[in-house]
Amino acid sequence: MEKKLNELKTRLEEVSNLNSATAVLGWDQATFMPPAGANSRGRQMATLASLSQEKFTDPAIGKLLDELQPYAEGLPYDSDDAALIRKTRSDYEKAVKVPPAWVAKFSTHSAVSYQAWTEARPANNFKAVEDKLKTTLDLSREYANFFPGYEHIADPLIDGPDPGMKASDIRRVFGELRAQLVPLVKTITEQAMADDSPLRAGYPEDEQLAFGMQVAKDYGFDFNRGRQDKSPHPFMTSFAIDDVRITTRVQEGDLSDALFSTLHETGHALYELGIDPALEGTPLAGGTSSGVHESQSRTWENIIGRSRGFWEHYYPKLQKQFPGQLSKVSLDSFYRAINKVSRSLIRTDADEVTYNLHVMLRFELELELLEGKLEVKDLPEAWHARYQADLGIHAPSDVDGVLQDVHWYGGAIGGEFQGYTLGNIMSALFYDAALKAHPDIPQQTGQGQFGTLHSWLKDNLYQHGSKFTPNELIERVTGGPLRIEPYIHYLKTKYGELYTL
Amino acid sequence: MEKKLNELKTRLEEVSNLNSATAVLGWDQATFMPPAGANSRGRQMATLASLSQEKFTDPAIGKLLDELQPYAEGLPYDSDDAALIRKTRSDYEKAVKVPPAWVAKFSTHSAVSYQAWTEARPANNFKAVEDKLKTTLDLSREYANFFPGYEHIADPLIDGPDPGMKASDIRRVFGELRAQLVPLVKTITEQAMADDSPLRAGYPEDEQLAFGMQVAKDYGFDFNRGRQDKSPHPFMTSFAIDDVRITTRVQEGDLSDALFSTLHETGHALYELGIDPALEGTPLAGGTSSGVHESQSRTWENIIGRSRGFWEHYYPKLQKQFPGQLSKVSLDSFYRAINKVSRSLIRTDADEVTYNLHVMLRFELELELLEGKLEVKDLPEAWHARYQADLGIHAPSDVDGVLQDVHWYGGAIGGEFQGYTLGNIMSALFYDAALKAHPDIPQQTGQGQFGTLHSWLKDNLYQHGSKFTPNELIERVTGGPLRIEPYIHYLKTKYGELYTL
Repeated sequence: MEKKLNELKTRLEEVSNLNSATAVLGWDQATFMPPAGANSRGRQMATLASLSQEKFTDPAIGKLLDELQPYAEGLPYDSDDAALIRKTRSDYEKAVKVPPAWVAKFSTHSAVSYQAWTEARPANNFKAVEDKLKTTLDLSREYANFFPGYEHIADPLIDGPDPGMKASDIRRVFGELRAQLVPLVKTITEQAMADDSPLRAGYPEDEQLAFGMQVAKDYGFDFNRGRQDKSPHPFMTSFAIDDVRITTRVQEGDLSDALFSTLHETGHALYELGIDPALEGTPLAGGTSSGVHESQSRTWENIIGRSRGFWEHYYPKLQKQFPGQLSKVSLDSFYRAINKVSRSLIRTDADEVTYNLHVMLRFELELELLEGKLEVKDLPEAWHARYQADLGIHAPSDVDGVLQDVHWYGGAIGGEFQGYTLGNIMSALFYDAALKAHPDIPQQTGQGQFGTLHSWLKDNLYQHGSKFTPNELIERVTGGPLRIEPYIHYLKTKYGELYTL
Repeated sequence: MEKKLNELKTRLEEVSNLNSATAVLGWDQATFMPPAGANSRGRQMATLASLSQEKFTDPAIGKLLDELQPYAEGLPYDSDDAALIRKTRSDYEKAVKVPPAWVAKFSTHSAVSYQAWTEARPANNFKAVEDKLKTTLDLSREYANFFPGYEHIADPLIDGPDPGMKASDIRRVFGELRAQLVPLVKTITEQAMADDSPLRAGYPEDEQLAFGMQVAKDYGFDFNRGRQDKSPHPFMTSFAIDDVRITTRVQEGDLSDALFSTLHETGHALYELGIDPALEGTPLAGGTSSGVHESQSRTWENIIGRSRGFWEHYYPKLQKQFPGQLSKVSLDSFYRAINKVSRSLIRTDADEVTYNLHVMLRFELELELLEGKLEVKDLPEAWHARYQADLGIHAPSDVDGVLQDVHWYGGAIGGEFQGYTLGNIMSALFYDAALKAHPDIPQQTGQGQFGTLHSWLKDNLYQHGSKFTPNELIERVTGGPLRIEPYIHYLKTKYGELYTL
């Protein structure tokens, strides 16, 4: 049995190495690659992806999994080997159900559709991508139908990024959240808006980067095991548990962009860096879902990085770094500036309070498209109507409406957005559990000490990699299912101090 | 037949993509990778290399080559398809003769030996690597013996980096060169030494990099299709004809290090960037040999970049960039400083005149080791004796003696060094042919214009990639075989102006 397990691990390590190589090529493409390298890079990445798929769906892996099943059943549920066999089987069964021809078709279509979007958005021309989007919807439905027996057609699409999560559950949770958020946003935005002009006073790039890197180090990002570079869109990517990269972008006219994107990506990185090294080279060596991943980026960006305690420690340092810009700005004004709430059109620029409204309406539109209740041609108007209903605003054009996010134009329809809000909800859920174990965490944050929180997260979440599904993890950590109360409590407490609620 | 040719090309493109991915991972390892990434990176690169080897030695490729042979024979020798089939067959036949077990053994041994060297060199402890080196010699002999029927046991080892070149021919040519160089070095080094202290006046890194990049651009390096980064040891690597990377290193206390390494690697890059795009994704899409490659790095570094004409144009610019350091240093003094000749111990720091003596004695030692005329245990003394005979100096220890170069400790014994001197010889040979076609090249160099030379090299060398062997290329360009006269003429003319010969 040990021989079979080792053979499985050898095969999985080969797949893992191919995936890591693809990740390195993708990272280089986004950070350093010269423009003319794009065509060959696409072909190189396609070769690696196709070899990885071929190696992972090799029937020999299915056979090994079958042979190892009795062994796995004799192990404790949370043992590494049991989890390895369970997770690999789940991934394998998903992978073999999707024909390579569909993968190739979808990949080609995504590239064409993405290219069309890059031209359609600046031209405010939804018509130019409408047919592409129809094909995307058809292909997304085709994908779902490789998994007959689903409860909702979106379920197979959600199951990739957020394994085990169901559209019906998410819809219910999101419904509860929306019911709380819409009136909260209304109450807050009727009051005087915070002044965030100090954030636009002009901040030299190098000093911004140095400050963000220092906080990342203080958080526990080990730069012996990772690094930060610049890219047009910030992201985190992992090549190995000991080699995790983040990127940021810097606007000299917006202090918050680089800083909070660094803290956000550092959260993702701490998760990957915290995985048990014993899981290296296996499908367990990565965060378990987009939602849990996002919970960690949001914890370190928002719950910690936009908290008053954090800035009680860091604001004097920031003022010292930027005396010309900040010496006359009080901590209170700065804290209000970085937590300004406003009804805005662009999801990625949205504050903590309004952000989830942007996400949830996209999730709902995805479900309606997949259900056939909404047609692609009616999507721009549905978008505007939803923004009017939930946020009380109307985009002047589709540029800042249905054309704003790349997701549907470069990926599938279904499964693209729910992780962002699931992550926000979970961030408070997990942080709440951490506080119960260590009530002194906020006090430590106020001293720039993050070791207790980091260790707790590592012990309870990070080390497990993908050993548990998101729901299993929530159950283990909180003793119950996903619930929104800690998140609502977090928002109401924090914004109750900033506004009259 | 077209179908078979396309199938061959599809298979070769897959191999090419795997090799490019390996190159990207290697580049990242040398430039940006955090230290702790080394272990996983080694495994990732090993997976890619082994898949590439497996795909390239697939018997299906041998079968396709056999089937395509009649087609190839009906084509002109210099047609792309004929060259593709010829070169692929040559590479394939070499690859299938080497058992994967040897490749694995050699790869593992190299890693161990390299690691031992990194510790043995600072400790001046040749004994610590002696056994490793014996194994390297055994493995190198084993490799050669996969190719029975060789004229000299080094031939199969040389045939990888310098296809078609034979130990006997190289020995003869090197003998002629040594006979000329030893007295030349003696004559020069008996005269007053140039003062190169102005090069050590302290030069800020950013300005050094900016100056080198400007010259690289002037040479014709298209930074839309490549880039330069920093690494401990400068190198050039190609991911595709449209994506060629170079690296440099900067010492603020030595102006010549970054500048001339940038010009050197730019020469390598111009070669790769100049390959006909029709050859992309095939074994033809790379320089044809280490010697021809080195000829181009040396052309742009030395023949052009250390010429008086070049500096007549660039020295005023350099003085403007570094007025504090250079305003009182005349062009003549600067020109003498960058062309200072001295008997030195370290190959990589050696000047144009002495450099080849360092290389040729290593080549000769390789041959004697392979022939069994020299034992590994006697290598340190043989090294010292050879330096005494050829350069008239004796290293105080093995640190700057037999332990100085990584080559034998991370690679094979045999084939590691000849390319450097072949390159120098060829640089003058090709440049001489370029001058015959365009006698105004030196005048253009004096005006910072390099288009004529670059175009001539592209048309006559670069575009062909690996379509022709080095000897074929020399024959096509010069109408005769490899000969040292143009190189001796170049050295004697240049150094005859600087010294009394």
